[in-house]
Amino acid sequence: MFSYAIGVDLGGTNLRIAAVDEYGMLLSKTALETEVSRGREHVIRELCQATKEIAQRMQDKHRGDATLCGIGIGVPGLIDIESGHLVESPNLPGWSDYDVKGDIEGRLGTPVIMENDANAAALGEQWLGAGRNSESMCMITLGTGVGGGLVLNGKIWHGWNGMAGELGHCNVEPDGHPCNCGSHGCIEQYASATAIVRMARETLASGAASEMHKLAAEPEFNSRVVYECAMRGDEVARKVFERVGRCLGLLIGNMVNALNLPLYVLGGGVSSAWDAFSPALFDEVRRRSFLYAATTPLDRSSILVEHHSTFITRALLGGDGGLYGAARLPLLHQAMTSKV
Amino acid sequence: MFSYAIGVDLGGTNLRIAAVDEYGMLLSKTALETEVSRGREHVIRELCQATKEIAQRMQDKHRGDATLCGIGIGVPGLIDIESGHLVESPNLPGWSDYDVKGDIEGRLGTPVIMENDANAAALGEQWLGAGRNSESMCMITLGTGVGGGLVLNGKIWHGWNGMAGELGHCNVEPDGHPCNCGSHGCIEQYASATAIVRMARETLASGAASEMHKLAAEPEFNSRVVYECAMRGDEVARKVFERVGRCLGLLIGNMVNALNLPLYVLGGGVSSAWDAFSPALFDEVRRRSFLYAATTPLDRSSILVEHHSTFITRALLGGDGGLYGAARLPLLHQAMTSKV
Repeated sequence: MFSYAIGVDLGGTNLRIAAVDEYGMLLSKTALETEVSRGREHVIRELCQATKEIAQRMQDKHRGDATLCGIGIGVPGLIDIESGHLVESPNLPGWSDYDVKGDIEGRLGTPVIMENDANAAALGEQWLGAGRNSESMCMITLGTGVGGGLVLNGKIWHGWNGMAGELGHCNVEPDGHPCNCGSHGCIEQYASATAIVRMARETLASGAASEMHKLAAEPEFNSRVVYECAMRGDEVARKVFERVGRCLGLLIGNMVNALNLPLYVLGGGVSSAWDAFSPALFDEVRRRSFLYAATTPLDRSSILVEHHSTFITRALLGGDGGLYGAARLPLLHQAMTSKV
Repeated sequence: MFSYAIGVDLGGTNLRIAAVDEYGMLLSKTALETEVSRGREHVIRELCQATKEIAQRMQDKHRGDATLCGIGIGVPGLIDIESGHLVESPNLPGWSDYDVKGDIEGRLGTPVIMENDANAAALGEQWLGAGRNSESMCMITLGTGVGGGLVLNGKIWHGWNGMAGELGHCNVEPDGHPCNCGSHGCIEQYASATAIVRMARETLASGAASEMHKLAAEPEFNSRVVYECAMRGDEVARKVFERVGRCLGLLIGNMVNALNLPLYVLGGGVSSAWDAFSPALFDEVRRRSFLYAATTPLDRSSILVEHHSTFITRALLGGDGGLYGAARLPLLHQAMTSKV
């Protein structure tokens, strides 16, 4: 008999669903739009319909002998791990305090595991990406905001009520830019796509010479444009990414000092600007953490480094990390329960 | 047959040794001076002699039927967990890269487990002190410096090479006071006894009115004196402890956001100034961590709070936490291996 899992990445914009086997092989994949404005019932109906179609495809392929061991769903927001309720999700208005797990289990007759999307992405990277040789790692996702996930000894670290990994609100500048969370100077205010655009505009407003003065007036001015300017040598853009790197280095230095994890992985759209911010990041983390300096040779190109030092690197699965990680959840659960 | 363990707290000044049973009952205790200046061999001989005497006392009491299951030793410094070598220990000069574990095992014929002293203190508090109802906790030790230890699911979290818990070098002020570790603005520069005296002197030098002007000239001027002035209402002393609290609140806020642990325990000599710094600490952690604010009722006096919120409190075992934690190490090891 053939066994597989379905992973769902339920974002505020995209709804992606994939069938994955226990080795991490992608078997089938569907990408839809999350039509949030049409309401929760509509989105859940679409999700269930697409899941059924994938399950049917798997049955056809394996002549009725494929077993779906469960569905993992990654969602942006806080989740009550025990009940599977979405406690709060700014990107899914009207879903708060709703029993998503129970609802979908009822419609599909298959066990559902809910997970925060950043945690799912961390688990995916640990399973099949940059962390595939590491039982423990920290993932920092740099997107519109900054998210995080910790995998300790092969399992997502949830904390006491499921809210661990809110790295975006760790502080890097006590009197810094105000954050939506109520604090000032959270890393989200210095290393997100939103922050990159803000910091670029701030420096431009101060009158610094830059090719960005023209570009910033265009509606499509975004963090990608700032990155391209930085790579062309624009001094203002370069400084913005140096600040991104310094702030990330401070955060990772703190994590190294506190947790001494072997691996820190940067994912999300902004991580593709790696070339622009990573030199400052490595410089800063070395300056901030004597543990990092003591456990990491300066020559990071050595092939031995990965297994004998604290390693900081880019995510390898791109936008699919969360999808694989979501599928991993029921597979891990099955492996655990079948062992007993 | 009666089984017990011996815990050793091997500090740069004091050498304390205790026999403890599996329930955490203190059976016998010896306190010596660590005569560091007389060399490593002398200290190890003293340690072994005192341990033998305690073991003999236990045999006499139990008519030759007492089994010593192992010796746990808490040491200030970095330890290579696998080998038991002291990698680095500023307070024990001449002990670096020495096989303390092998040496003592050879002399006493009993298994020895080496541990960092702050980790041992965390384990002691989790076993018998403020963390006795909590499987996971973070301990921050405020002494001459600032140390830390993490207990996750009942075990010390060592990180990938045994160096986790260096909380004293987590950053709270990116451009702050220079630290011995090479960084600037580590929490150790704002919440240690040394830092309290420095901050008091800095403010006095600025000319602020304070009863401390006279006291600061005395040779016995220390963090305790600053505390007493703060409690008598001296504005400069009060501000110093407010800063201690704010910096600790920032650090703990970051820990709450990243790890979502149920419990944060403050120990060490400076923690006795709790009344002076804790109001600012609670205010700051609430401001810095929306997770803390979301998981902690404002009325902390409720008896229900301990089990339904993020809890920040003082250590309960005082200077004995490390001693109990050290004894706990062989007991935990025995429980684990006898289960197999």
